[in-house]
Amino acid sequence: MSSEKPMLYTYCRSSCAFRVRTCLNWKGIDCEYSFVGLLKGEQKEEKYVEVNPYKVVPALKIDGIVLTQSVAIMEYLEETRPEKPLLPKDPHKRALVRSLVQAIAGDIQPVQNLRVLLHIESLGGDKKEWAKHTINVGFEGVEKQLSKSSGKFCVGDEVTLADVCLVPQVFNANRFGVDLSKFPLIQRIANDLSELEAFKKAHPHNQPDCPSEEKK
Amino acid sequence: MSSEKPMLYTYCRSSCAFRVRTCLNWKGIDCEYSFVGLLKGEQKEEKYVEVNPYKVVPALKIDGIVLTQSVAIMEYLEETRPEKPLLPKDPHKRALVRSLVQAIAGDIQPVQNLRVLLHIESLGGDKKEWAKHTINVGFEGVEKQLSKSSGKFCVGDEVTLADVCLVPQVFNANRFGVDLSKFPLIQRIANDLSELEAFKKAHPHNQPDCPSEEKK
Repeated sequence: MSSEKPMLYTYCRSSCAFRVRTCLNWKGIDCEYSFVGLLKGEQKEEKYVEVNPYKVVPALKIDGIVLTQSVAIMEYLEETRPEKPLLPKDPHKRALVRSLVQAIAGDIQPVQNLRVLLHIESLGGDKKEWAKHTINVGFEGVEKQLSKSSGKFCVGDEVTLADVCLVPQVFNANRFGVDLSKFPLIQRIANDLSELEAFKKAHPHNQPDCPSEEKK
Repeated sequence: MSSEKPMLYTYCRSSCAFRVRTCLNWKGIDCEYSFVGLLKGEQKEEKYVEVNPYKVVPALKIDGIVLTQSVAIMEYLEETRPEKPLLPKDPHKRALVRSLVQAIAGDIQPVQNLRVLLHIESLGGDKKEWAKHTINVGFEGVEKQLSKSSGKFCVGDEVTLADVCLVPQVFNANRFGVDLSKFPLIQRIANDLSELEAFKKAHPHNQPDCPSEEKK
């Protein structure tokens, strides 16, 4: 393994980068940040596309290699840095965690990301309403799942990758004005998680690239 | 583990179900199918929502439990049935596979699924053009990634979960009229995979719930 410090390519408000920041903090992996200004289109610049062909954040340079896609990065960190685990040992519980991860990272977030919202807007649609609707539909399923799997956190009483994905999605839900009182388990768990240092430090408002007017 | 035969809740044309069918075939897991008519709205019926709170296919009853979300199901099968592996042993290669899985299952497919397309259409947009555009943007990244990672298949010379996700996405691309000649690696690898028995047997046209007019 390379002795160089890992480098995370990140953007404050990206919920995919928020996930990986949380995971790195949780595992105590010391890391440098390279900021990719999504609103300025820096993700499409040639030098970044060489790092990440998908033109999105995050990407992580670690162990002499470059990793892309937040879920793949988190699974890699789990496999190579198993201390402070974010996946349970039992295969059924692991599947429950991964199912919640995919419900958020695969079903909800991609459908309310910037590119889709801009297209909705270009057709004269209300992008905020669409984002709210998408999150509401997705959270109905997540809430129902949590009623079966949750303890203190999403799956049982330990923090897992499901929690790491939930908090950024709740941040988005708040931005779009979703009424979270309809989802009491999501709300309670996300509130509790937000008090934990790894999540606090990863929050968009605590990033050096977060514009000061956003923090209010 | 339960001795009951596993039960897959499936719909012929769902690319998420297509992935899991392929994975089950590849690993030689004998399985019964329960057909969920998505066009008839059967995924929203109470008895199915009890099985899968996300109101989508697939779901898999296996080992006395119910699993949801295609990627989580495939990871579970890989962990509990490691014979005929679909993930390499090396953590870096595993991350490459999972990155391609997420690029397809997280970035491309959700944005061109039926629910999004119907919304685009309701706003007066061209749903086929949007699907084509989404797949084109996503496949540009996948093709670039394959130029670094592929051998005979997506990552090296062995079939992996990345291949299992690629073939259903290429099926969708063809349905929407994407010009695959722009993506020679995707095209070549998907063609080769389509000759393999596990993929053939999982193809939408070879499902008992596929209407005969679709097969032409």
